[in-house]
Formats: sequence, structure tokens, C-alpha cells
Amino acid sequence: MHSAGRSWLLLTGFVLFYVIYLLFGALVFSSIERPVEDKLRHDMETLKQEFLNLSCVNPASLERFLVQVLAANKYGVSVLRNSSATSNWDLASSMFFANTLVTTVGYGHTTPLSDTGKAFSIVYALLGVPFTMLVLTACVQRLMYPLVLAPVGLLQRSGMEPRSATAVHFLLLLLMVVLCFLLAPAAIFSLLEVSWSFLDGVYFCFISLCTIGLGDFVPGTQPGQQYRPLYQVSVMVYLFVGLMMMFLLLHTFHKMADLHGLTTFLQLPHCEETDEDREPIVDNKLEEESSYPSDKAASKPLEPGSQPSYNTINKG
Amino acid sequence: MHSAGRSWLLLTGFVLFYVIYLLFGALVFSSIERPVEDKLRHDMETLKQEFLNLSCVNPASLERFLVQVLAANKYGVSVLRNSSATSNWDLASSMFFANTLVTTVGYGHTTPLSDTGKAFSIVYALLGVPFTMLVLTACVQRLMYPLVLAPVGLLQRSGMEPRSATAVHFLLLLLMVVLCFLLAPAAIFSLLEVSWSFLDGVYFCFISLCTIGLGDFVPGTQPGQQYRPLYQVSVMVYLFVGLMMMFLLLHTFHKMADLHGLTTFLQLPHCEETDEDREPIVDNKLEEESSYPSDKAASKPLEPGSQPSYNTINKG
Repeated sequence: MHSAGRSWLLLTGFVLFYVIYLLFGALVFSSIERPVEDKLRHDMETLKQEFLNLSCVNPASLERFLVQVLAANKYGVSVLRNSSATSNWDLASSMFFANTLVTTVGYGHTTPLSDTGKAFSIVYALLGVPFTMLVLTACVQRLMYPLVLAPVGLLQRSGMEPRSATAVHFLLLLLMVVLCFLLAPAAIFSLLEVSWSFLDGVYFCFISLCTIGLGDFVPGTQPGQQYRPLYQVSVMVYLFVGLMMMFLLLHTFHKMADLHGLTTFLQLPHCEETDEDREPIVDNKLEEESSYPSDKAASKPLEPGSQPSYNTINKG
Repeated sequence: MHSAGRSWLLLTGFVLFYVIYLLFGALVFSSIERPVEDKLRHDMETLKQEFLNLSCVNPASLERFLVQVLAANKYGVSVLRNSSATSNWDLASSMFFANTLVTTVGYGHTTPLSDTGKAFSIVYALLGVPFTMLVLTACVQRLMYPLVLAPVGLLQRSGMEPRSATAVHFLLLLLMVVLCFLLAPAAIFSLLEVSWSFLDGVYFCFISLCTIGLGDFVPGTQPGQQYRPLYQVSVMVYLFVGLMMMFLLLHTFHKMADLHGLTTFLQLPHCEETDEDREPIVDNKLEEESSYPSDKAASKPLEPGSQPSYNTINKG
């Protein structure tokens, strides 16, 4: 099969498997955690009723009550009246949780209650996290030409010096990412979430796309939100594409740092090759002799200085 | 200066600056958040007293009370009697929070209450996250020889075929990491934290070292723990070294995948160069002509197949 065709087929396979993996995770988490959550929710209702029926509320009884309220709240089970209608472990919410596991964002607004759930989280993340990194890397590789190599080439052809071209391109890319993946989503979130200010939106987007995921702001967790499952899936897509753009930005910065001699100066590793159109050295068969694939590339001598920027280096 | 000497000086500088950056973050977070937390804590005390003084507790008054209790709890301020003694924003706790930001673990057991705190979190992570990745990468680079290249060489000299040597070495490294950075710390945590089982410990270590950081289990947050600041600093050191080992494991797996033709087969980027003893191509001065540093390496022809494993490839 033609290399580029096989490359896109692989990518489609990766993304498809990623979605299936999320769905599978959602089904398992939902089936493990939903009954435990239902029981806890029911227990909390009883507890609240018992507390209200007390003839006298004293500090000790209030303390006992609050200990249990806060313990349940840690697992995302709230005793508040209006939040009991929505489960944290319906299919969409479970998929959202699975997504925050494999992307390492991990808001922690809902966490597994049962030991089975915890054990499954470990196994699920163990396979899911590296696979998600692989899918993101594969996607970024395919975006390198249209979003990095081609624009840098264009800037160069317009008469810009190679190093300046990469710097200008990086700043433009950064501006684009900040506008489309930080400020615009922040504005949308501050409209959709009643209690969020614009700063809260920016804070949520930034903390999420850095995979810090503090979880003090999580969209789609307010009671009574319309189209909640659709909203949660949209946030998941935003997170995936946003992370892809963060990877791309980081990768472009690394390439630029290489070109400007920064990585060499700081004695850090250089950027790896990521040309989607690079002909595979070994096509569909493994090498006979064990050796680094990169050595094969190294064995093709290149004229030093003949490849002055991303574009020519990668497409040359 | 000799290259290796400069390399270690750079690393020491990085680590020192990392510690200073954490201390700086701790001071700023503490000074911004501590007064806000004190006020909220005081408000919650008043609220609790008012609630206890109510002549009759009805569902509406309980609901109003609980809404505020849970809102305060989201920021790590608990109304429970025994948790009011410890602040979430003393110097050690603030440093712990700063550390979870820059490592992208982000437990979210405490989160900034004020807008100033949120804005500072963004700026702090914006600089801190890439810098932490840089420090971790630099540390891993220096660990590659003693923990990867040397052992693989040893296995090869004992008569093992290069590919098998790398696979056996990877399995041994994995075992070492699982034992020393997952099971052993989990056992220690289950001893130190009253309410944690061994599974909880494993779950905490795994979720932390993957940088997911759900935050349902965070060491050093129980009230009345002895030597809390020292304990928190120890957890921070564990997280840093643990993350370093995860980076090393991932990097070794990437190198092995390259060697076994997996990355080529999946059309993914190859592993970048990380030889600590590699002579810098440009020492202390930037190149005159802009070109990829890696092209210089590519311009030195190597005999294909002459470098059969990590060790010889990197040290040859």
C-alpha cells in the first residue's frame, strides 16, 4: 500500500480504537460504580432525613452528620436536593471520567467509590494513557505539514530569513492557539455555566490543557443543565483537540529551540523526526539486523547547511 | 569548560532553580490565599454556630447551610471541628500545591479561592510546567547511562543478543520501578495514613505518577498528623523522583520500540538522542548557519548495523 495511504489508515484506526476504548471504559465504570453510587445516594437521603427528624441538633450530632456528608461529597455524591437527579456514572459522565483518566487531566470531581472501580482505573489508565499519547502524537505528526512546515515555507518564500520565519510562525501559532483554544472556549464556558466568570473559563481551559485538572471548575456538573450528555461529549472533543494543539505547540517550540541552538546550548535532547511524508525505512516488514532506525537515516549523508528550516529539512 | 562538567553544572542549576521556583510559588500562594482562607474559615464557623442556634432545623435551612458547607469544601475549607487547626495555605502546603501545579499532577484537594490566586496559578504554571519538564528531561538524560546504557551493555557482554538484551533490561527496569515507586511507597502510605488500605496506596501512587492526580487520596491532609511539613516535602521529593523514573521508563520503552522496528511500523517519531556524554556539537557558541543540529549528526555517515544496541550506539 502507498505509504501516505497507510499512514492515514493507521491514524483512522487509532482514533476509532480510542473512541471504542472510551466507550468500553464508560460501560465498565458505569456498571461498577452506578450501583455503589445509588446505594450511597440512598444512604445519604436517609441520613439527611434522620438528621432532620432529630428533636435537638447539638454540635456532636451535626459533626457526625457533616463527616458523612463531606465523605460522600468526596466521591461526587452531594446531599443537596437539586443535585440528586443526575448521576455521576451515567454513560456520558462515565465516558467523561474515562477521558479525564487517559488524557491525565484527572479533575477528580467524581472518583471511583469501590475497590473494583479503583483497580479498574489503574488497569484502564495503564493501557489508556500511553495509547492516548500515541494517538495524540500520530495526530500531531499529520498536522505538522499543514500547520508548521507549509506556513514556515510560505514565510521563507516571502523573503524572510529562516530563523526569523520559524520565530514569526511560532508566535502566530501561539496566538492562534490562545485565541481558539483558550479565550474563545473560555467565553463560551462563561456563557454556558451560570456561576463562571470569564477568568474562571480561562482558568479552567488553561488548567485542563496543561493536564493539571484541579477540578474546582468542571463543565456539565451543575444540576439541571440541558443536553448534558451532548455538552460533555463536546467538552471531551474540545479537550482532545486542545491537547493535540498543545502537543503541536510544544513540538514546534522544540523544533525552533533546536534550530536556534537552544537545546544544544542547554545540552538537552533534540527534536525527533516527525515528517508524515517521510518514506518508511522498513515498509511492512521488520528489519533483519537489529539497529536503530535513525541510524539508517544517519547513514544517508546530507550536506550540512543545505537544509535551513523546517520545511526544506523535512520535505527535502 | 569540560563538557561533562558543564553538563552537571547545568543540571545542578536547573534543580536549584526548580526548588527556588517552588519556594517562590509557595510564598506567593500563601500570601494571596491565606487571608482569604482565614476569612472563609471564620465565616464557616459563624455559619455553623448560627445553624446550631436555630430554634428549628427545617429542610430549607439545612439545604441553605449545606450549600455553603459544600462550596467551602470545594476550596479545601472544611467545617469539621478537628480540621480547622491546619491551614491549606501554610508554607509547606502552598509548596505542595505549587508542586502539583508544575508537575501537572493537580490533585485539586485545595484550589485557589481568589481571582488573584487563579490568575497567579495560570502564570505560575505557564512558566513552571515547561521548566519542570525541562528539569525532568535533563535528569533523565543523566540517568540514561547508569540505568539503561550500562546495564544493556552488561547483558550483551554476557552473551545476550542485542534485541533480547534491551527487552530483558526493560522488564527488569519496569520491575524495579513497580517495586520501588509503586508497591513500596504504597505500603508506607497505608501505614502512615490511617484510613488508607494498601490498594488505596497503590491507587494513589499510580494515579499520581501518571500525573492524573484525581485528589481523592492526598497524603498529609488528615488533621493531627505529626511532622506534616516534613511529610509533605517527602511526598514532593517522591513525586519528583517517581516522575523522573516514569520519564525514564517511557524513554527506554521508546528506544526499545525503535530498535524493534515498532515506531517505524506504526509510522511514529523515533526517539531523540539523549547521550549524556555526547560531545556538544556547538559548545558555548551558536551556529553561524541556521540548520538542524541533528543534521550535523546525520552528516556523519555511520555503517548501518554496526551499532546494535543502546550502549554501542550511544557510546560509540
